[in-house]
Amino acid sequence: MAFDERTGSQEPKIVVIGGGTGLAVLLKGLKKFTSRLTAIVTVSDDGGSSGRLRTELGVLPPGDIRSCLVALAETETLMDKVFQHRFGQGDSIKGHNLGNLLLVAMTEITGDFVSAIKEMSKVLKVRGQVIPVTLAPINLVATMGDGTTVEGETLIREHPDRIVKLSLEPQDCHPVPAVLKEIAGADAIIVGPGSLYTSIIPNLLVQGVTEAISRSRGKKIFVSNIMTEQGETDNFTALDHLNCLLSYIAGNIIEYVIVNNGYIDGARLNRYQEEQAVPVEPEVEAIKAMGYTVIEKDLISDDEVAWHDSDKIARVIMDIINEQQC
Amino acid sequence: MAFDERTGSQEPKIVVIGGGTGLAVLLKGLKKFTSRLTAIVTVSDDGGSSGRLRTELGVLPPGDIRSCLVALAETETLMDKVFQHRFGQGDSIKGHNLGNLLLVAMTEITGDFVSAIKEMSKVLKVRGQVIPVTLAPINLVATMGDGTTVEGETLIREHPDRIVKLSLEPQDCHPVPAVLKEIAGADAIIVGPGSLYTSIIPNLLVQGVTEAISRSRGKKIFVSNIMTEQGETDNFTALDHLNCLLSYIAGNIIEYVIVNNGYIDGARLNRYQEEQAVPVEPEVEAIKAMGYTVIEKDLISDDEVAWHDSDKIARVIMDIINEQQC
Repeated sequence: MAFDERTGSQEPKIVVIGGGTGLAVLLKGLKKFTSRLTAIVTVSDDGGSSGRLRTELGVLPPGDIRSCLVALAETETLMDKVFQHRFGQGDSIKGHNLGNLLLVAMTEITGDFVSAIKEMSKVLKVRGQVIPVTLAPINLVATMGDGTTVEGETLIREHPDRIVKLSLEPQDCHPVPAVLKEIAGADAIIVGPGSLYTSIIPNLLVQGVTEAISRSRGKKIFVSNIMTEQGETDNFTALDHLNCLLSYIAGNIIEYVIVNNGYIDGARLNRYQEEQAVPVEPEVEAIKAMGYTVIEKDLISDDEVAWHDSDKIARVIMDIINEQQC
Repeated sequence: MAFDERTGSQEPKIVVIGGGTGLAVLLKGLKKFTSRLTAIVTVSDDGGSSGRLRTELGVLPPGDIRSCLVALAETETLMDKVFQHRFGQGDSIKGHNLGNLLLVAMTEITGDFVSAIKEMSKVLKVRGQVIPVTLAPINLVATMGDGTTVEGETLIREHPDRIVKLSLEPQDCHPVPAVLKEIAGADAIIVGPGSLYTSIIPNLLVQGVTEAISRSRGKKIFVSNIMTEQGETDNFTALDHLNCLLSYIAGNIIEYVIVNNGYIDGARLNRYQEEQAVPVEPEVEAIKAMGYTVIEKDLISDDEVAWHDSDKIARVIMDIINEQQC
């Protein structure tokens, strides 16, 4: 771990790869331990406000980037709230998220998306940095269980059959250079939690990303989801998550697997009934037998959903990072 | 002039009353001389992005407030540019100004427009403060030269006849309390420059505003426009501007009149031909004869329009404020 001249303390360099809510939850916890934090975020979203902006303006979907910026923002001004604000009315602006519009405007002003994110990071006083995995206008393409090919994240999620194979269109898209640089210099690289097919794997399909993770000397950690996700990981165990991930990658990109063994009460489970999500079975012994170090902990958040608790998951990750120094 | 504990210098308390571009130009100049600057801004706009938001969301029109905030903003981040950014494309957002949307969102978050402006002022690092003259959803109502009554700023401007009488609807609208407080404690109160009927007089029609100006011990200064304005002040001299203003007010609210005597070259005048605007004739002697102190100076900006130069007009105002101390 390199010495940090700014703080005088040894803050680890952590790279987190994913998208969506799972990534934001993790970032909220990790920012308390380090400012040398990089979120590498997928840009394949095509639904909601992001999707409309993508269609109407031809910009990259800003939604997942926005969530990560808010997760890493200081909360002393109300700008983090403004950034997440969604207009509930108004013929023209209803449904649009102001943070998305800010990112689009800043992109038009600065001329590129990466600079726009950097400028918004200053305004939000973000701890760490957020980088889109690629600047290519990618789409997800899935071969489904019934043999059909479906293009676009929203349609893939809505398709009743399971996903058999996922790829990017165009396939030869290149990463933002900082993505490879940050992975190369990281003390730890965290994959997940988040939607396996629509938030995590798309990052790994960008050319050179898995190779960079494999080459990095950072600790390689996979965080399994707590609940299965309808249309993506129905009935998946933690082993299924891991195997699915591994099927898309060349080289050794995982060493540690973090699974939840905390109890999810009936009230919480009822909330997930409609979307047919169930707790992910840890299958710890099977994963250990494959040679991975498995950390099983109660990682459930204190609120009413079955998400990771930001602090609990961050602490487990910090323990892994610090273990050799003890 | 009260001693300013923050800077250790005697910065004057200046209140500027108006709206639109004229007010923004003045603020840009004055902020170099004092941080104790208050812009009191009309909220009767019903055109463009402001008008759409007003109709669709029932909010106060944010456009004039936005321009003043930008004029007073520090420019170290790009937030001032973001705040002025207008979307040029996109079915849903085209024509909307991002600063307007930010003010609307912040109003929804904080629950009131005045708090929203304060929060946005922090983000933009505004020097001074911006206050809407009233929180009432006012409309301008004009009796035109042909005897018809027209409601709404845009329709009034577009009407071919001259404005004979202007009023607010509702007539009994009350000012934001800070408006009266700032006027009462001001070292100087500046009225104009700006659109006479649609930016300046609407402020003075809000109950108690002219009385507060009249009672204030601050120096009372009127800045005449440089060019006439089609549909509002066609062929008006500086005296016409002043007399028109005085016809709407009770009490002595003007002591000083600032007029431009700078030459406006043909190239500039050509730019105004289409909108039939001509230079405002100073009529200095006539105004002096009415008992006013008249300051005539070349106040033309260095760029290609016939606007006030921010620095020149601010310096004239500062000279008036400082004259008793010399």
